[in-house]
Amino acid sequence: MTDHSYYMELALNQAKAMKGQTDPNPLVGCVIVNGSRIVGIGSHLKAGEAHAEVHALRMAGEHAKGATMYVTLEPCSHHGRTGPCAEAVVRAGVARVVVATLDPNPVVSGNGVAILKKAGIEVITGICEQESVKMNEVFNKYIVTQRPFVSLKVGSSLDGKVATHTNSSKWITSEEARTDVHRLRHENMAILTGINTVLEDNPALTARIPNGKNPIRIVLDSTLKIPLDCQLVKDNRAETWVFTTSRYNEEKKESLEESGVHVIMLEGDYIHPGEVLDYMGKKNISSLLVEAGATINASFIEHQLVDKLVVYMAPKLVGGQQAPSFLGGTGAEEMQDAIELNNLQVETIGSDLKITGYPVIHGEKN
Amino acid sequence: MTDHSYYMELALNQAKAMKGQTDPNPLVGCVIVNGSRIVGIGSHLKAGEAHAEVHALRMAGEHAKGATMYVTLEPCSHHGRTGPCAEAVVRAGVARVVVATLDPNPVVSGNGVAILKKAGIEVITGICEQESVKMNEVFNKYIVTQRPFVSLKVGSSLDGKVATHTNSSKWITSEEARTDVHRLRHENMAILTGINTVLEDNPALTARIPNGKNPIRIVLDSTLKIPLDCQLVKDNRAETWVFTTSRYNEEKKESLEESGVHVIMLEGDYIHPGEVLDYMGKKNISSLLVEAGATINASFIEHQLVDKLVVYMAPKLVGGQQAPSFLGGTGAEEMQDAIELNNLQVETIGSDLKITGYPVIHGEKN
Repeated sequence: MTDHSYYMELALNQAKAMKGQTDPNPLVGCVIVNGSRIVGIGSHLKAGEAHAEVHALRMAGEHAKGATMYVTLEPCSHHGRTGPCAEAVVRAGVARVVVATLDPNPVVSGNGVAILKKAGIEVITGICEQESVKMNEVFNKYIVTQRPFVSLKVGSSLDGKVATHTNSSKWITSEEARTDVHRLRHENMAILTGINTVLEDNPALTARIPNGKNPIRIVLDSTLKIPLDCQLVKDNRAETWVFTTSRYNEEKKESLEESGVHVIMLEGDYIHPGEVLDYMGKKNISSLLVEAGATINASFIEHQLVDKLVVYMAPKLVGGQQAPSFLGGTGAEEMQDAIELNNLQVETIGSDLKITGYPVIHGEKN
Repeated sequence: MTDHSYYMELALNQAKAMKGQTDPNPLVGCVIVNGSRIVGIGSHLKAGEAHAEVHALRMAGEHAKGATMYVTLEPCSHHGRTGPCAEAVVRAGVARVVVATLDPNPVVSGNGVAILKKAGIEVITGICEQESVKMNEVFNKYIVTQRPFVSLKVGSSLDGKVATHTNSSKWITSEEARTDVHRLRHENMAILTGINTVLEDNPALTARIPNGKNPIRIVLDSTLKIPLDCQLVKDNRAETWVFTTSRYNEEKKESLEESGVHVIMLEGDYIHPGEVLDYMGKKNISSLLVEAGATINASFIEHQLVDKLVVYMAPKLVGGQQAPSFLGGTGAEEMQDAIELNNLQVETIGSDLKITGYPVIHGEKN
């Protein structure tokens, strides 16, 4: 039982418990073992605060000397807001460090391990690596690309419809599935929708679960049609950002800004979703949930900007050639051009299926 | 281990092994236990041949006396082609009979058990009942309604598309999924498609697996457009039936009949799928697999004629508002009118999901 992966699993579980509260930092967990006894545990709790290793070393105190540290991510080597962890590990007299994954940032990857080894500490890497990589899929993408990890969420019938031919859409999925969506909102730093969804549904886009953290709410609205009295403008429950184009109306922009809405004008007549992601990355937003209609969904998919697809699929048949499917646009030309999904996972939530997958990206993203 | 359900599971497994070869009769398995020893086993192999109980009693011989018989379906009470099993059980001196389900035919249900009880045999019913009912879902429907059990098979992308907007459709699903479809064909007495599928794909609709039994091939073709040189007319690998309407062409009908095709004319201009099922029921066809396009699929679904939906769903996104979904037609008016599916089951076949469900039928079928 008490092999490396046993302690690393403990560290991973501690890390995962903080999901949604460390952004834009990664989830990290740490366990320090001396002989047969755990002498310290730690998790990274919040960006700007202590790293997992520091918490665990403090708890261990003198017992860290000669101990083995299990940490889900390579200890950092840089003088950031909290000082380099690798040096703290050396100072504490730890004898051995077991690491799940190296730092995904190619600029610093391996540097922490090098400091440890130079100090004579034994280092073992790659224990529970896949699980650790998956746990930080958001951070890993963000730190390398400076764009948020994009999850596209869809609620559809088994035949892929999001509404009937009369545009009736409430409710496709079960209450349990909708609660799970609120958890997704809590876990993402921002949520994005289109102006048509705002006009049709007047959504709040908040995380309505106990202790839910509301994401920044982003609307793509090329001509600033967003009503001044909609929930996103009026409710003050979270920041609202509206992306628009040169076609915007200056007066409307001022009214929105007076209401506290952040209006961002992009060049040109069309909102390119890649430019939206670039802007968000610059603002340190590492995760984005897209909850939009068929057109915006298709735009993100066709530009190969979706990292993860999450479909809540109700055991229902809507039917109708004219009823909207969850991906609009033109779609693939030939069947072999269809976008494949990797690592498909299926679970049951209430009466619905939750299907997640990772679109395979061919060639250049844009 | 050796409780009632242990032996009944053995009997169920023996019954299931004959799937696809007993139609229109049910699957039935039987195990006879004397003391701690199995003294006889039997399965119903083929309509017109001995029932499971008869095979098992023959194997048991004298050991049947005082034994316990496990049988998945109530022993029959009627003088059909094989004589009433209930009387054979009495004659053999069996002491106790354990039954999974009573006969689904309301006209005779309970009669077999009554004969056993009258002869002083202890009877226990309801052991593994659900599993037995599901195993004979085809027979149970057919015997009560005199219409075949209808399975609708679909191969689609995750977004419910059966082709791209350019009508490219080869191949959506994996080879493993397509092999599984051949097994479905083997298990069904008939397969149905539309004339457009025949004209576009020229399919053989045969069960191309080792020892596959080809179903009767049925085409809905209101004006007899089926080409005389298509596989279904020329290949002689199985019977082909064509349903048509008063709009048919007499000369074409004669040519088809000369080629061995069975042409059935229905009243009116439109082929009502319910009439097709009535005709098939009269011809002792108890199971039908529908493998058709979006329009026929929608017609069967909207008339509430589908007993079981089988979707092979590839982990792919096709997209495109104009790309055909697996259900065409008009579809539901309001979301609450969408057709619900019961007993949803998901398994993985190759790279695809196989999702099965049972459409909930409201009010009258038609």
